Amino acid sequence: MAITKLNETEREAALAQLPLWSYDADADAICRNVKFADFAEAFGFMARVAIYAEKADHHPEWFNVYNRVEIKLTTHDAGGVSQRDIDLAKQIDSCR
Amino acid sequence: MAITKLNETEREAALAQLPLWSYDADADAICRNVKFADFAEAFGFMARVAIYAEKADHHPEWFNVYNRVEIKLTTHDAGGVSQRDIDLAKQIDSCR
Repeated sequence: MAITKLNETEREAALAQLPLWSYDADADAICRNVKFADFAEAFGFMARVAIYAEKADHHPEWFNVYNRVEIKLTTHDAGGVSQRDIDLAKQIDSCR
Repeated sequence: MAITKLNETEREAALAQLPLWSYDADADAICRNVKFADFAEAFGFMARVAIYAEKADHHPEWFNVYNRVEIKLTTHDAGGVSQRDIDLAKQIDSCR
């Protein structure tokens, strides 16, 4: 089954369950920035997320510098935010 | 000893030994983009770099999406590119 983009109502309902995430209209993506004590903690988190992402075959766009990680989730095949992004966001929250 | 910024001559001489890296004048940083077969390979590379970076106590600014990793090295304490960036770039090249 093809992955479809959530409509605005569906996306807002999903985001209401993800208070740490926000919608970036320009990127048509959901975003979360996370700050850690240091690089080792930040990268440990990234490693946990990487394993989930690889299992789900759905990967984040992310930036890291020292103790900060900026995460953006979107589904290129769907042209926007899909249920896959919501599911990965929940997994990411469980990694923090 | 304080870490000092390399002057232009020093930086260019160092970069001549690092053909995969280029100088980004806007960021006052050296950059390399690396492409892998897939996410698992890209993240494996990042994990190797992370261990080197943590040992050296000098960390990259980097972005990853799927099989691509964009790396930027600069030394904030020195206000630009220092020998630490050159050393880390060499280590990163050995991780690829």
